[in-house]
Amino acid sequence: MSLHYLDDLAPGQRFLGSTRLRVETDRIKAFAAEFDPQPFHLDELAASASIFRSLAASGWHTAAVTMRLLVDSDFQPAGGIVGAGFDELRWPRPVYPGDELRVESEVLEVRPSKSRPEQGLVKVRTTTLNQRDEVVQVSVGNLVVPRRRE
Amino acid sequence: MSLHYLDDLAPGQRFLGSTRLRVETDRIKAFAAEFDPQPFHLDELAASASIFRSLAASGWHTAAVTMRLLVDSDFQPAGGIVGAGFDELRWPRPVYPGDELRVESEVLEVRPSKSRPEQGLVKVRTTTLNQRDEVVQVSVGNLVVPRRRE
Repeated sequence: MSLHYLDDLAPGQRFLGSTRLRVETDRIKAFAAEFDPQPFHLDELAASASIFRSLAASGWHTAAVTMRLLVDSDFQPAGGIVGAGFDELRWPRPVYPGDELRVESEVLEVRPSKSRPEQGLVKVRTTTLNQRDEVVQVSVGNLVVPRRRE
Repeated sequence: MSLHYLDDLAPGQRFLGSTRLRVETDRIKAFAAEFDPQPFHLDELAASASIFRSLAASGWHTAAVTMRLLVDSDFQPAGGIVGAGFDELRWPRPVYPGDELRVESEVLEVRPSKSRPEQGLVKVRTTTLNQRDEVVQVSVGNLVVPRRRE
């Protein structure tokens, strides 16, 4: 797969994930135990009385799985996927045990850097969907991408 | 520790983390192997030639550790820390092995919900700092917080 330099990217380009990842109950609980130990991410009974109504993955788990799907996707910036930050990160719907996630990305903006001519920023919207094509995460991030050396 | 309802929160209130978390090399590599398998998060030698110049934690690892610090902090919304989404998420500086992180949070906005009178949204800025008081993450998130029942 060829690497994408800043010069290769343009608004409107879309990239698809090449894999799906299934989010299993034991991984939901293990992630939560380490990083987000709240009852609705750890225990089925506690979750049934919560806003989620049943055991749900931490949003940060969904974000981390999304990153994995992105690293494995057709979008391969030279220098790797290096995020300067996000303008938006939303979880419209929880991820439940057994959900199978995939990603789609779209380039929104490409800006060469004025101060660092060897690189630029690429604004990318990444949408994470479950097996019913429902959106579970939307992020709009700014990635640092090198320019092609002439 | 008393729980915070929407009615208890107001712009300008600040909350401190009660703990620090040390980010160890083996956890950086394990997180990256599962969620962000890029050379600069997995291998010291590859990282030395990258934009990070040495092994650095995935930004999503920093975000996950921040969540853990927040769950363990003085900020205890009734119903838990439930994020509807983020307006901003930035990593001004990488997290390196051995860094010890802590969080500070500030309430920016409190908005009762018009459609759901039993709850509202609280906009919170959470800053994650390392042992040199350098900022490694800034997030501005919108949390769903219940109102006190009269």
